[in-house]
Amino acid sequence: MAATPLYKQFADQLAASIREGVLLPGERIASVRIASQQRKVSVTTVVRAYELLESRGIIESHPQSGYFVREQAPASDKPAAKRSARQDNPAYQRSTEVDVSRLVLATLKTIQQDGTVPLGSPYPNPALFPSQRVSQYAGKIMRDASHSSVFDDLPPGHPDLLRQIARRYLENGLKVDPEEIVVTVGATEAINLCLQAVARPGDTVAVETPTFYAMLHAIERLGMRALEIPTDPQRGIDVDALEQIMKTQPVAACMVMPNFQNPLGFQMPDGEKERLVRLAERHQMPLIENAVYSELYYGNAHPSSLKNYDREGLVLHCSSFSKSLTSAYRIGWAMPGRYRAQVEKLKFLNTLTTPTAPQRAIAEYLTQGGYERHLRRVRRAFAQQRDLMRHFVLRFFPDGTQVSEPEGGYVLWVELPSRVDAMELYRRCLSLGITVAPGRIFAATNRYSHFIRLNYSYPWSREMEQALKLVGKLVLELSA
Amino acid sequence: MAATPLYKQFADQLAASIREGVLLPGERIASVRIASQQRKVSVTTVVRAYELLESRGIIESHPQSGYFVREQAPASDKPAAKRSARQDNPAYQRSTEVDVSRLVLATLKTIQQDGTVPLGSPYPNPALFPSQRVSQYAGKIMRDASHSSVFDDLPPGHPDLLRQIARRYLENGLKVDPEEIVVTVGATEAINLCLQAVARPGDTVAVETPTFYAMLHAIERLGMRALEIPTDPQRGIDVDALEQIMKTQPVAACMVMPNFQNPLGFQMPDGEKERLVRLAERHQMPLIENAVYSELYYGNAHPSSLKNYDREGLVLHCSSFSKSLTSAYRIGWAMPGRYRAQVEKLKFLNTLTTPTAPQRAIAEYLTQGGYERHLRRVRRAFAQQRDLMRHFVLRFFPDGTQVSEPEGGYVLWVELPSRVDAMELYRRCLSLGITVAPGRIFAATNRYSHFIRLNYSYPWSREMEQALKLVGKLVLELSA
Repeated sequence: MAATPLYKQFADQLAASIREGVLLPGERIASVRIASQQRKVSVTTVVRAYELLESRGIIESHPQSGYFVREQAPASDKPAAKRSARQDNPAYQRSTEVDVSRLVLATLKTIQQDGTVPLGSPYPNPALFPSQRVSQYAGKIMRDASHSSVFDDLPPGHPDLLRQIARRYLENGLKVDPEEIVVTVGATEAINLCLQAVARPGDTVAVETPTFYAMLHAIERLGMRALEIPTDPQRGIDVDALEQIMKTQPVAACMVMPNFQNPLGFQMPDGEKERLVRLAERHQMPLIENAVYSELYYGNAHPSSLKNYDREGLVLHCSSFSKSLTSAYRIGWAMPGRYRAQVEKLKFLNTLTTPTAPQRAIAEYLTQGGYERHLRRVRRAFAQQRDLMRHFVLRFFPDGTQVSEPEGGYVLWVELPSRVDAMELYRRCLSLGITVAPGRIFAATNRYSHFIRLNYSYPWSREMEQALKLVGKLVLELSA
Repeated sequence: MAATPLYKQFADQLAASIREGVLLPGERIASVRIASQQRKVSVTTVVRAYELLESRGIIESHPQSGYFVREQAPASDKPAAKRSARQDNPAYQRSTEVDVSRLVLATLKTIQQDGTVPLGSPYPNPALFPSQRVSQYAGKIMRDASHSSVFDDLPPGHPDLLRQIARRYLENGLKVDPEEIVVTVGATEAINLCLQAVARPGDTVAVETPTFYAMLHAIERLGMRALEIPTDPQRGIDVDALEQIMKTQPVAACMVMPNFQNPLGFQMPDGEKERLVRLAERHQMPLIENAVYSELYYGNAHPSSLKNYDREGLVLHCSSFSKSLTSAYRIGWAMPGRYRAQVEKLKFLNTLTTPTAPQRAIAEYLTQGGYERHLRRVRRAFAQQRDLMRHFVLRFFPDGTQVSEPEGGYVLWVELPSRVDAMELYRRCLSLGITVAPGRIFAATNRYSHFIRLNYSYPWSREMEQALKLVGKLVLELSA
């Protein structure tokens, strides 16, 4: 009797791993080349095994990104948010390759279409921005500076803007030297450069779960692995869980959004922020802080930053004006602590320069004043709209729906009844001209299959109410 | 008497090991952490010792890969340009790690200073640009589009600009579908994304030698290795040499600038361009083409592009408006052939979007007309200034100086008498308020220690002539 062929043996082992939950639905499996090396079998054997599993509907290939475990959430799959973090949950101890950007880009492009109700948008309502004034400055600077040369734009950034950013931090209780700052093309580039400065391809990077997908994008772009750390919807990343996990494996860096995290909306308590920084110090682990929502607080005072507790320059702080002043110019910045030189150099390598005119326009706006007044108006609007959005979601959505309580920013995290497939909801909403952000894009693994994120930065309207009612109806249908 | 500090003792021991050949040039030395453990000294001690050795030019740090014994070009090191390529020269068969960006940034920052004579500048004289008109469009667009949202900016780019770029290619004899194009933050980002789409960290990438440092930057940024291919000052990269080398080792991609290469100025003959593309086809090797100078030809017709010969989508063509229309906006693009989807995705990951207003301003300029007239004026000016620059260099510089014969663009490549240390020349010029670009930045290895590049995009002036005369005098001193 012939022995079982090697490729069938390998396929059966892999199927067992998937059945046992070692590999989760949506998770990427090792590339053919890697698997061939790891298992010490030929490339052909791996290819045949994968083809067999694909034909059985156990895995699927995504063009140009490899093979993935097919999405069939087992009944036992427990949602992570809204439950206390279990440090002994093995799902929290494995790092994962990341590939969410295609889905994110696809969802963003749907919002781009005219006339859609932008509940799925990650951006604040641009009508709230004082764009008219900033644009006037920019227009004037552009006309006057027609002979400006690219030299003026060399990193780290325009001195006027660096000074204004530092002044703004000082007003918010953080002493910053303008020389610590490197201007970037949005916070996106800042996060990318900071991560590249501190970790290498293949390294494991700890993230919150759920996390803002920009963090996952940075990890994906650099070929690193994401390690999802339990994150409390009120208190933020579980520092103890992170410490436990760091005992079992090397973690090259940790990326967090301590203030008004997207999508959960929490503000980490000061004590937790400090504990996180101390943990980082003990392990000399860099912390990448995404602070783009910090100005959008509903409380009485500007929240602290990890930078406030950073004694050793381990915090790489990233922010931008895109969420608080204008998104038209893509002006962000990094304060990379002890990694400043590397980040400045990577900025130079990545995009050479950030154009000066927009930097000068924003600097001019900040110099002329009115930013704080503008922000107060925005914060008030968002706080009211949060209450309305929560109210109507709880009214229109079926029993079992739970919503977050954001303390700043403009997004609501919604846990739907567990039978609801948020991707299917997303598709059905889209056919009605409504966008929602499916939970799938907030994790490297498919933990949030029945979660959505809703944007409440737009003023409440009859149209919004009708749209939300429709979404609620679809949720009810899908939960049946 | 105080004892020699510990870090100095350690530095001296290490220097001795290097002198005695225990550690070879190019060899990596122990990481700070490892050295600290091995020598039982503090991390600070090791860091200070390494800094001392670096300042002495004995070791050098390579980003994210540690410290290496410096390569000190032996006396027998022969310059590559102006000599026929030797395929059996072992210097052409080793790939090298790349770390030139710090030196490049330092030289660019010197040009930034007011009042320096910008002979070392890589940029064309901005006074030649029709910036006034483009800026007026931009100013108007910015004021009108104050509510524009970031969605309008999502990759691949603004449709009006994509159409105008495609139309421009068509006018120049290349049929391009607007959908092939991805707009980027300058050609710098385009080159970075294209390289990342086709090769991985550690891979070997073939480049011309000398090459434009933007190519080296892309390789450095991604932790790849540069393989320098003999490049003829008139005919461009030696296709036969490249083919020979590809038989001995895997080459993941090849990066070239076929038209008016910086720094050599050649235009590859059509036959050579075609041979290069056919070679790429036989090996299914991606070709990254940097075309930023293609519009700046002195001849009668627009030169062909590698894209003209590309039947299989293997050419990733990169360009920008920064050298021909305006550098103020950092608008570049890639036409990545079969790698389009990956490049669009990487663009999204890298900087999310390219701001729309500058894209629309340039599209408006191209729609309104006048680009070709502007370019004709610039080409005429550059052709005349080339002749003047060549004339005066040969007049002011000592015997043994040789100059290139650029057929487009605005830079001259100058081979000085072989005893001249171009880095020393660069420093002495700087002290006199004159910048030159040292040959060191045009190769991963120190092949061009007695070469400089001069910019002739500025109209000839008394001041320029005086400056050049001074440079000539310094060259004479250094060649003694």
